[in-house]
Amino acid sequence: MQAPFSENAILACMDKYFATAHPSLLLARGDDCAVLRPSGPLCLSTDLFLEDVHFRRAYFTPQEIGHKALAVNVSDLAACGAKPLAFTLGLGLPPDVDLSMLEGVFAGMSALAERLRMGLAGGDLSRSDKFCFSITVWGEGDARSGAGCHWLSRSGAQPGDVLFLIGSAGLARIGLELLESEGRKIMQKWPAACAAHLMPQPQVDAGQILSRLGQTEHPPVLMDVSDGLASDLPRLLGMPRSGLGAELLIPEALLHRELTQYARAHGKDPVREAYLGGEDYALLGACSPRLLSALHTALPGLWEIGVVTDSDGIRLNGARVREDLGFDHFHETAEIK
Amino acid sequence: MQAPFSENAILACMDKYFATAHPSLLLARGDDCAVLRPSGPLCLSTDLFLEDVHFRRAYFTPQEIGHKALAVNVSDLAACGAKPLAFTLGLGLPPDVDLSMLEGVFAGMSALAERLRMGLAGGDLSRSDKFCFSITVWGEGDARSGAGCHWLSRSGAQPGDVLFLIGSAGLARIGLELLESEGRKIMQKWPAACAAHLMPQPQVDAGQILSRLGQTEHPPVLMDVSDGLASDLPRLLGMPRSGLGAELLIPEALLHRELTQYARAHGKDPVREAYLGGEDYALLGACSPRLLSALHTALPGLWEIGVVTDSDGIRLNGARVREDLGFDHFHETAEIK
Repeated sequence: MQAPFSENAILACMDKYFATAHPSLLLARGDDCAVLRPSGPLCLSTDLFLEDVHFRRAYFTPQEIGHKALAVNVSDLAACGAKPLAFTLGLGLPPDVDLSMLEGVFAGMSALAERLRMGLAGGDLSRSDKFCFSITVWGEGDARSGAGCHWLSRSGAQPGDVLFLIGSAGLARIGLELLESEGRKIMQKWPAACAAHLMPQPQVDAGQILSRLGQTEHPPVLMDVSDGLASDLPRLLGMPRSGLGAELLIPEALLHRELTQYARAHGKDPVREAYLGGEDYALLGACSPRLLSALHTALPGLWEIGVVTDSDGIRLNGARVREDLGFDHFHETAEIK
Repeated sequence: MQAPFSENAILACMDKYFATAHPSLLLARGDDCAVLRPSGPLCLSTDLFLEDVHFRRAYFTPQEIGHKALAVNVSDLAACGAKPLAFTLGLGLPPDVDLSMLEGVFAGMSALAERLRMGLAGGDLSRSDKFCFSITVWGEGDARSGAGCHWLSRSGAQPGDVLFLIGSAGLARIGLELLESEGRKIMQKWPAACAAHLMPQPQVDAGQILSRLGQTEHPPVLMDVSDGLASDLPRLLGMPRSGLGAELLIPEALLHRELTQYARAHGKDPVREAYLGGEDYALLGACSPRLLSALHTALPGLWEIGVVTDSDGIRLNGARVREDLGFDHFHETAEIK
């Protein structure tokens, strides 16, 4: 490491990329706490983004690391239909990270933050063995209804509700497989799959539209798909306690061309790959059929994938799916390596 | 590792130690976001607590790890005079941590949380190479003044203000040295020093009292001493830009007996050790002399350590101190090993 890497140098670098004030903050970076000025309920979420667990320096650019560290957090705000406001950053830096790499990380993170008009409210710096990001984001519910702020939650799906997805399923999964086995050079051949893993785009606008249109007696339920449909759909349905299940219809024709191509080339079922997924950061929801036409008009990318049933279990294109297909962060197979 | 260590097992263990609801939350754990119901401005802070950077399993019990991970965060709320409300936990678990160790960590963390009536609002779990804690805490300012919520910040010290400390200085530093060189068995000989490093007690009550009594035209400035007086005092004074300095008077007789004994036994100056400190989690502040008698009455543990001057530089017991004594997390010497 050539450059002196003092705490002050890191903070100065941070100040180059992130404004030191934000309209939602009474007190921003530099004090013991940030002071927030909430106008109503706040949606708040924390996610870890760890080197060699969630990303690899071998095939992520610094900009992509910075983008994704924030994006996966913002996806949780999208799933509540919240408008992002600000975030804190806990940053562990290994000794082989230099200031130019850090500039790249901050550039990628600040580009997303600026697009969403989010402020960096504070955080913590530390040495660490590997890159370690811990981000806490918060945002506010929709207040335009006049009935106070509104947000969406996971709970409340009912039999007969239509299941929908906004975003893609399975593409990031094959992007990860490709990048792990072939490295970054494979991007030229599979650009969409690699981009889905490297630069996920949180569905912030869609979440807010769903929240606004869903201010009815039976609002949509919503979550973001981070562990794949196979894990996250049972969570949305509160299975097995709720007694709910699902009848899914995912025609192969609706899947991304790269996903079907890749699955065929590797002797896999593309629909099963889409269902297993992982790191899709799509929005998965369920809503009353009466809400559908308004949602389709406002959200052309909304994709109906089935219905909620009152019989336990999930059927996919007519066949019952095993219940242990889901992703567990603590199983050996859950690691990216 | 004997026990199966699934995500569900960890979440079930968490639910044993932390209530799933809290009066300050409209929506608690289990959804994409927690939803906060703020009654006014919120003070919020994020800190990392990393294995082999901030603590070692060799001489910390799991309970002490859990306690300190939360305590160092709460200390930031104390420094704003805020009343703690809730927190999120980002938890990275290495493969050699079993459920009984995790129970210990949660027991230590929940004991402190219960004492402070804090709720666990949510978080994130991941595998990691080493134990990794990232906690975001929030709390509310004092609203009893009738003039809206109030909190204290670092900025605004003026020449002539009295510098004060609540808590000890330097004790955790020698506790760390002792534990590093001798291991946990040394606790019997140096109980206060080891406890200062293993189980820091955030000054939450003192912070709130300072906030309440300080609602004047010139409120006290306040911060928590995490990196030692040598680093944190210049930060409180905004040196060198502010043009402020300090004249410190720290008589050896006021230092903890273990600190003076240890320093003498190792040929060190106990006052210098107190000044260098590190991880004290004491409160360092400055206030108008007019406020002092009220503060002394309400806070018997408040310790006057000097005055703010309008001449650049810090003098300690009559001698100018070097400006580069402070702690930098990215210097080689900043590591615990």
